[in-house]
Amino acid sequence: MESGSLRMNKQSLSGIAGVFHAEQSERILYYMMHSLQHLGQDGCGMAIADGSHVMVEKNHGLLAEVFKEDVLSKNTGISAVGHVRMSMYLDEALENLQPIMVRAHQGHFAIVVSGSILNARELQEEMEADGLIFQGNSDAELIAHLIQFNHGHLFEKILSATKRLVGSYTFLLMTKNTMYAYRSSDGIHPLFLASYKGGYLLASETSAFSMFDVEEFRSLEAGELIRFGKEDVRSFFLNDRAQERLCAMEFVYYARMDSLFENVSVHTVRKKTGAMLARQERVDADLVVAAPDTATSAAMAFASVLKKPYEIGLVKNRYIGSTYIYPSSVQRMQGIKTRFNAVSSIVKGKRVYLVDDSLIKGFTAKRLCQLLKEAGAKEVHLRIASPRIVSECWYGFEEADHDELAANVYSDDELAKWLNVDSVRFLELEEFDACLPMDCCQACMRKEREHCGRKI
Amino acid sequence: MESGSLRMNKQSLSGIAGVFHAEQSERILYYMMHSLQHLGQDGCGMAIADGSHVMVEKNHGLLAEVFKEDVLSKNTGISAVGHVRMSMYLDEALENLQPIMVRAHQGHFAIVVSGSILNARELQEEMEADGLIFQGNSDAELIAHLIQFNHGHLFEKILSATKRLVGSYTFLLMTKNTMYAYRSSDGIHPLFLASYKGGYLLASETSAFSMFDVEEFRSLEAGELIRFGKEDVRSFFLNDRAQERLCAMEFVYYARMDSLFENVSVHTVRKKTGAMLARQERVDADLVVAAPDTATSAAMAFASVLKKPYEIGLVKNRYIGSTYIYPSSVQRMQGIKTRFNAVSSIVKGKRVYLVDDSLIKGFTAKRLCQLLKEAGAKEVHLRIASPRIVSECWYGFEEADHDELAANVYSDDELAKWLNVDSVRFLELEEFDACLPMDCCQACMRKEREHCGRKI
Amino acid sequence: MESGSLRMNKQSLSGIAGVFHAEQSERILYYMMHSLQHLGQDGCGMAIADGSHVMVEKNHGLLAEVFKEDVLSKNTGISAVGHVRMSMYLDEALENLQPIMVRAHQGHFAIVVSGSILNARELQEEMEADGLIFQGNSDAELIAHLIQFNHGHLFEKILSATKRLVGSYTFLLMTKNTMYAYRSSDGIHPLFLASYKGGYLLASETSAFSMFDVEEFRSLEAGELIRFGKEDVRSFFLNDRAQERLCAMEFVYYARMDSLFENVSVHTVRKKTGAMLARQERVDADLVVAAPDTATSAAMAFASVLKKPYEIGLVKNRYIGSTYIYPSSVQRMQGIKTRFNAVSSIVKGKRVYLVDDSLIKGFTAKRLCQLLKEAGAKEVHLRIASPRIVSECWYGFEEADHDELAANVYSDDELAKWLNVDSVRFLELEEFDACLPMDCCQACMRKEREHCGRKI
Amino acid sequence: MESGSLRMNKQSLSGIAGVFHAEQSERILYYMMHSLQHLGQDGCGMAIADGSHVMVEKNHGLLAEVFKEDVLSKNTGISAVGHVRMSMYLDEALENLQPIMVRAHQGHFAIVVSGSILNARELQEEMEADGLIFQGNSDAELIAHLIQFNHGHLFEKILSATKRLVGSYTFLLMTKNTMYAYRSSDGIHPLFLASYKGGYLLASETSAFSMFDVEEFRSLEAGELIRFGKEDVRSFFLNDRAQERLCAMEFVYYARMDSLFENVSVHTVRKKTGAMLARQERVDADLVVAAPDTATSAAMAFASVLKKPYEIGLVKNRYIGSTYIYPSSVQRMQGIKTRFNAVSSIVKGKRVYLVDDSLIKGFTAKRLCQLLKEAGAKEVHLRIASPRIVSECWYGFEEADHDELAANVYSDDELAKWLNVDSVRFLELEEFDACLPMDCCQACMRKEREHCGRKI
Repeated sequence: MESGSLRMNKQSLSGIAGVFHAEQSERILYYMMHSLQHLGQDGCGMAIADGSHVMVEKNHGLLAEVFKEDVLSKNTGISAVGHVRMSMYLDEALENLQPIMVRAHQGHFAIVVSGSILNARELQEEMEADGLIFQGNSDAELIAHLIQFNHGHLFEKILSATKRLVGSYTFLLMTKNTMYAYRSSDGIHPLFLASYKGGYLLASETSAFSMFDVEEFRSLEAGELIRFGKEDVRSFFLNDRAQERLCAMEFVYYARMDSLFENVSVHTVRKKTGAMLARQERVDADLVVAAPDTATSAAMAFASVLKKPYEIGLVKNRYIGSTYIYPSSVQRMQGIKTRFNAVSSIVKGKRVYLVDDSLIKGFTAKRLCQLLKEAGAKEVHLRIASPRIVSECWYGFEEADHDELAANVYSDDELAKWLNVDSVRFLELEEFDACLPMDCCQACMRKEREHCGRKI
Repeated sequence: MESGSLRMNKQSLSGIAGVFHAEQSERILYYMMHSLQHLGQDGCGMAIADGSHVMVEKNHGLLAEVFKEDVLSKNTGISAVGHVRMSMYLDEALENLQPIMVRAHQGHFAIVVSGSILNARELQEEMEADGLIFQGNSDAELIAHLIQFNHGHLFEKILSATKRLVGSYTFLLMTKNTMYAYRSSDGIHPLFLASYKGGYLLASETSAFSMFDVEEFRSLEAGELIRFGKEDVRSFFLNDRAQERLCAMEFVYYARMDSLFENVSVHTVRKKTGAMLARQERVDADLVVAAPDTATSAAMAFASVLKKPYEIGLVKNRYIGSTYIYPSSVQRMQGIKTRFNAVSSIVKGKRVYLVDDSLIKGFTAKRLCQLLKEAGAKEVHLRIASPRIVSECWYGFEEADHDELAANVYSDDELAKWLNVDSVRFLELEEFDACLPMDCCQACMRKEREHCGRKI
Repeated sequence: MESGSLRMNKQSLSGIAGVFHAEQSERILYYMMHSLQHLGQDGCGMAIADGSHVMVEKNHGLLAEVFKEDVLSKNTGISAVGHVRMSMYLDEALENLQPIMVRAHQGHFAIVVSGSILNARELQEEMEADGLIFQGNSDAELIAHLIQFNHGHLFEKILSATKRLVGSYTFLLMTKNTMYAYRSSDGIHPLFLASYKGGYLLASETSAFSMFDVEEFRSLEAGELIRFGKEDVRSFFLNDRAQERLCAMEFVYYARMDSLFENVSVHTVRKKTGAMLARQERVDADLVVAAPDTATSAAMAFASVLKKPYEIGLVKNRYIGSTYIYPSSVQRMQGIKTRFNAVSSIVKGKRVYLVDDSLIKGFTAKRLCQLLKEAGAKEVHLRIASPRIVSECWYGFEEADHDELAANVYSDDELAKWLNVDSVRFLELEEFDACLPMDCCQACMRKEREHCGRKI
Repeated sequence: MESGSLRMNKQSLSGIAGVFHAEQSERILYYMMHSLQHLGQDGCGMAIADGSHVMVEKNHGLLAEVFKEDVLSKNTGISAVGHVRMSMYLDEALENLQPIMVRAHQGHFAIVVSGSILNARELQEEMEADGLIFQGNSDAELIAHLIQFNHGHLFEKILSATKRLVGSYTFLLMTKNTMYAYRSSDGIHPLFLASYKGGYLLASETSAFSMFDVEEFRSLEAGELIRFGKEDVRSFFLNDRAQERLCAMEFVYYARMDSLFENVSVHTVRKKTGAMLARQERVDADLVVAAPDTATSAAMAFASVLKKPYEIGLVKNRYIGSTYIYPSSVQRMQGIKTRFNAVSSIVKGKRVYLVDDSLIKGFTAKRLCQLLKEAGAKEVHLRIASPRIVSECWYGFEEADHDELAANVYSDDELAKWLNVDSVRFLELEEFDACLPMDCCQACMRKEREHCGRKI
C-alpha cells in the first residue's frame, strides 16, 4: 500500500480561466492566465477548441516559458480553457498538469479544476476497484473519470458527477463546440463570468479580466452550472445549495490586490483589517513594517490609523524565477539571506510593529522577526491582520496539519516566546468579520468544526 | 463522432529499454536509450524505481534535451524503464509520451510499449462503454487500462490483458520492486535480454547493449513473459505460440547497422541483399550510388560484386535537429534543397545505379532520382535491395495505405516512368529470403494475406 | 559616415558590482547582482579572478538565465566584477555586454562601467584616427582603450585615462589579483563600498549588500579611486574635485526603495516628496492612485497628508519577462491592455489624484490617465512628485531630447490638455530640494545649464 | 607575464561562408553554414548587411541553437558572412566568436577568418606596445586590428595588412555594401567561389554549395583577393605567390566526403589511399573494420582490393550534442563506453584489419584497438591510410606538439607495442602523393622542414 504517497489532503494552489466564442481566444486566454500567474508558477496549460477539434498544450514552467508565439499565432481557437498551478511535494508530475484531456470516440473534452475534493481518496479507491486507472493525482483527472463513468448526455454525466463530489471546487469543461462552468455548492472557491465582444470570459479572479474591456461581469453563484452552447447559454442550479460562503483567505492573501468580490477590492478589505487591528493597539512603537508583499495594504492602514511612519524595513528579492539559484543551507548560515532581508538603517534601535497578513505554521514570520532583530530592531511587535488559524482547513487550501498550526499549538504569549518577539497580537474573529464584504467560510479560524451539516 | 482522428491504424516508430537491479540504473538506461535514439527523436521518457517509489520524467525532444545531469545524478534508481518515440500527425500530444504511469492505491506501475495493437480501436470502444477515459491514444495507455481492468495479482492481470490483445508488440512494466518484460506471440517485434553486473538489461535492439560489457544476451522468445522479482527471475510462455516471425523490415531499415539478430549483424544481411541484387544485374552503368544512409551496406556490396565504383553521389545533411529551420516549399522551388543533395561532379554525364533499401510510397526515391538527373546523370537505374511492398502492413509498421504503396499500384515499367528513371528492379522475394538469417514476416511483400489463421 | 548610428548620447541604464577577496566570490557577486537586477534586465556578465587568471561569462538575458549552477559551483574565484544592463535601440549587440576583457601579454583585465561619458564620440574618433578598433559602442570598451593607450603601470594608465574622460561614471577594473574602483569627480553616479568577512563588496546601490551581513559600508567620494591590492587597500583622490552632487533622479526612480544614500532610504525621500506635494494641494478629489510601482511611496504619503483613501486603481502586470508575448498594436486597439490596467470598480465615478514619480516624455502618464478615464474616473488630477524636467540630461541618463520633454514643451495647462486630464501639478524645485538628504544634481530640472564650469 | 595562456600556436578548426548580393542572403548563408557544421560545432555567427547597416548575431552552440526563425525571417540581408568554430582549451570565450565587428565612424565592417597566423604573437605584442587592446585571441580580431591600423582606403588597408601576415588563412570581410574575399598566398587553406542567381556564394568547402543550384564554381587562387562592389567584382593577386599547396589533411580528414578539390571528391581520394594501402598488404586477416566515420571510404577500398569482407566492427554513437552527458572516468572504468564501441559478435575470434585515416597522438587509435581486443579480436592490424605525421604543423592545424606525435616518437614496431596490436603500417609518402589530385603541403609528414623559402 502506497496510499500515503498517493493522494494528499492538501491541495496545491491553482487558477483557471476560459474563453467562449471569441476571436483569438487562445491569445485572450494567454493574457487572462497571465493575470492569474500569482496563483501558480510551476506549470500551466491550455486547451483550444476550433469547432472540430480540441488541442492541448501544457508543460512545467511559467506561462511565458511554456507558450511561445507559434502557439498563439495559429489563431484557430474559438474557445479555450487554461490552468496555472503551484506544485507541491509528490504532485509535480507531468501527469498532474491541466487541462486533462479525455479523448473518447464519443467526443473529446478538456477539463480544468481549481479547488479541493474532500472525498477524492474514497472516490478513487472505488473507481480503482472498478478497474479505472489514475495516471496522476489531480482533481481534474478524478472528475473526468467520474463524468465518463456515468451514462447519458454530457450534461447528465456532469450532473451525476457533481452529486458524488464532496468538496469545494470550480471547473471548466470544454468540448469542440460547448463549454461548462461549475462552482461547487458551498461557494468556498470563486469563479467569475464576464461578457466580452459577444462571447464570454471565465476566471478564478476578476483580475483576469483587467486587461480587457469587459462589458460586465458577475460571480457564478454557489452550485451554479452554466452551459455555453452554439445556440444558447443556460444556467442551472445543481443540488441543494448550502449557504454560499467564500473562503475568507481569498481576502487575506490568495487574491490579487485589485481583484473584486461583490465589487469590493481585496485591497480595500485588507486596509480595513489593518485599520481595525490598529484600533486595539496598546503598545507604543516607532514605526510600521509590512511582511512583503501581501501585508502591504493592511500595514499601510495600520500605520495611518496609529499615525506612525510606514517604512520599508523588509525587502523581498524579485526576479526570482524557476532558474534562480538559491543559497544552500550552508551559505545561509554564512549570512547570505534568501528571499527577504531587513534594512538595518531603518530598523536599528527602533521599536517595530511588524504587520503580517496571517500566521499559518509561523516559519516565515519567525524568519522575518529574526531578520529584524539581527538588523538591530530594539523591539518587534508582530501584528497579524487576520484571526488565529486554529483548525486544519476542511477544503485543503492550507498545506498544514492541525498540530503544525502555530496559533493552535501556542498561546499568544508562547508564540511571542517561540518567535522571539516582544508581543504578538491577532485580529479577533468578530473584528475580521466586520471587515469582510460578505459572509465567508472561517472554518480554519474556529476550533469547533462543522461541514455539510455534519459535525466532525 | 470523431473516431477518425482518434486512433490510427498506423503506429509511430519507437524503442524501449529497461534496467533491472543495477547501480545507477537511470544512468545506464540513459546510455541504452541513446543507442536507440534512431528509433525515435520526437520524445522520450524514463521511469525510475528506487525500491519504494516509481518516478517518471518525460517530455518532447531528444534524450539529451529532456534529461539533464540533475536527473541522472540522483543515483537512487535500482531499476528503470524508458522509451523513445517518433511522433506522427495527431499523436504528438504530451499524453502520448511514455512511460505511462498508473498511480493506484494498490501500487504504482510504469509501462512502456513498442509495436502495434490491431484491435486497439475495438478494445478502446469497449472500455469507453464501461466508462474508462483515454487521455491519449498510445498503446501503452490502452494496455495499462486492460491490465487494471482485470482482477487478481498483477501477474494474472497481465496474463489476462495479453489474451485480449491482438497485434505485435513488446512491453516492459515496472513496479517499485519488480519488472515484467513481454514479447507478443507472433514475434514480429524484437526484445532482447542481457545479464549485466548481477542485474539485467532489456532493449528493442542489441545496439543498446553496445556501450556496456554485457556478459551474454539473448532474444526473448515469441510469447515469452519474464518476471523479474526481488528473489528470482522467472520466464513464462503465454498463449499458444504462433510461429515466431520477426518483421523482415528490421533488416531492411529499422535496426541500427550493428544490431544483431541470431548473432548476425544487420550490416551483414544488408550486404547479402546488395550482392544478391547485383547477381541479377543486366544493365551496364558506370557507378553505384547509395540512397543515404540505410542503403549504404547494400550498395557497397552491389558495387563490389559488379566491380563498379561505389561513389558518394548523394549526400544527406546532418546536424538537423528539432530546432533546424527547414526551407519552405517556396524556398525549395527556388532551388534550396532540403535533406539530400546530389554531387554533380560525380554523376554528371554518368550512368548511375541508385541503390535504395526499400520502396514504400516512393516519394523519397522520386526526389533522389530527380536530384541525380538535375545534377547531370545520363541514366539512373533504381535498384531496391528488398522485395516490392504490395500490401498494407498488418501490424501497422508502415505509415501507408494499400493504395499508396508504389509497387502495389504500379508495375516496374510504370514505376520507372513515374519516377522518371531508366529502369527499376527489386530484389525478388525468394532472393531476399535467402539473405535472412531466420524466417521472417513478409506479409507486406505478398498480395495474399493471412494472419492469425484467418485470411482477410 | 554612419556616425549617427554609432554612438548615442543617451546611455542605457546599468549597475555594477564587485567582490574583492572573499571565498565564493562568484556566488556572492551573483546575489549582489540579483539585488541590482532592477537596473537592467537585458544582459549581464561576470568576470572572475582566481589569482592567476581572469575568466569572463556574459550573455543576453536575466541573471538567472545567463548564470547556472555550473558557473557558480567552480568556487575558484577570489575576486569578481559584474554588470547588469538595459539595452536600447542600436546597442543591444553582444559586443556591448560587459565586463569588457582586455587580454594583453602584459596582463589581462576586465572592466565594468556604469554611467555616461560626455566626450565619448570625440575620444573614439581620435583613437580611431590612431588605428584603434571599436567592436561595440560601450563606455567600458572606450575606457579600456583609453587606459591601454597610455604607458606606465596600470595605476598610472588609469590615472591618465580618467583625466581625458568628461562625464559621470563609475567603474570597477579587475586584474588577476588586484581591483580598482573609481567614482567620477562630479559624483553624479553613486558607488558604495562595504567590508565583508575580511574582503570588500562594491556596488552601484546599497541594496546589493542587503543579502549579506556587511560590517559597515560607505559611499566612495567623488573623484575617489581605490586600489585593492594583495597587501593593502589604498584610496586616492584624482583630479580636482567638483562639488559632489548625486543625480536627483536616483531618489525619484532609479534606485530600489530600500537603497540608502547618506543613511536615508529612498522610500523615506519619496514619502517626503509626496507629503510636500500634498501640502500645496488645492483641488478636492476622492481618492489617491499611484502610478505603479515607483510612485507608491510618494502616493501613500500624499494620501496620508490629505486624509484621502489610497487605492489600487492601476495595476501593473508582473511576470513579464523577456519571453513574454506582448499584444500587437492591433490587439491593443481591440482593447487588450499591456503593462497596466485600471480597476474600474474603484475609480468609476470618482475624482482621482494620480500620483506619478516624474514626467519625462509623458507617454506613460498619458496612457495611465487614459486608462483611468476609460475605466470611468470622473476627474483625473495628475500630481508629479518631482519637479518639471525641462532640460536634456547632460549625463545622458534620460533617453529624451530637449524637444521631447513634455514639461519643457508644454505649460502645465497645455499639459493637462494634451494628457486630457483635469489638472496637472508638479513639485516645485525648492520643495523637492527640501526633501533630499543631500545636495543633488538637478540640471535637468533647470532651464539655465552649467557644467564643469562652462555654461553651454 | 601571462603570455603562455594568451595565444596558442594551435588553432581551432573553423569554416567560413559568405553570400554577396542575393535575396534572402541570411537564409542562404544559414544553409551554407549548415553544410559546414562539421568544421565546428561549438559556436557560430553571422553578420548581415542590408545596404545601410551591418548587424551581427553570434553565440555558443550549433547553428540550429543560435539561429531561430526570427533572425532569418527578417529577410533584409543583401549580403552576409558567417563562421562556425570548434573551441579549444583557453579560447572558448564569447570574445572569440566570429564575425568580429569593427564599428568605426568611417564605416562598420565584419570579418570572418579561417586558418592560422604564424606571426600572431609578434604582431599582437607589437600592436599592444602601440596601445591597442585585444579582447579575445582570435585571428579575426588580430586581422581587424592590422587592417584598421593602416591608413587609406579599405582596399589599401587590407593590402597592407596581408603584407604583414605570415601564415595560412582565408577571410571574408563585409561592409554595408561591399565584400572582400582573400586566400593567403601559400594556398594551404581553401576558399571557393560560386555564381548564384546573379550574386555570389563563398565557402571553405564546396559542400556548402550543395543545397543550391549553383551555376559554376571555382577555387580562389592562392594570393587572390576578390573585391565585390556594387558596380563590379574584381580580382587581384597580392604579394608574390608561393607555389600553391593545399593542406593534404583536407583529403585525409578535414573535408566532408562530397567536397570537391579540382573536381575530384574527397571520397575518391580516400578510396585511392585505401586501395594503395591494400596493394602492399603482407599480412593475412579475416575482415576489415574502419575507424568511424572518416576512414570509411579508405577501408571500403582496402577491403575491396584484398577481397576481404568489410564489416561494421566499430560503432560511433551519434546524437551526441553539446548537452549530451558524458560518462565520467569512473563510469568508463566500470565498462560504460563513450563515443565508440566494438561489435563483439563480428570481431570475436577474428583477425581484424583496422583502417584509420591518420595517426596523430594515437590515443583514439589506442582506444579503438583496445575495444577490438576486449571484444575478442584475435589479431588487430592497424592500417593508416596516410603517411606518418612526424613534424608539428607549421600552420597550426594540428593540436599536437612535436613530441606528442606518435609516429615521430615511435618506430612502427614500437607503435605496435604501445598500441598493443599485432602490426602497424602506414601509407608511404610517395604512395600518398600518387593519390592526391594536386600538389599538396605535406610538411607535417616530413622531418626536414621548409617554409616560405626559409628552412627552420
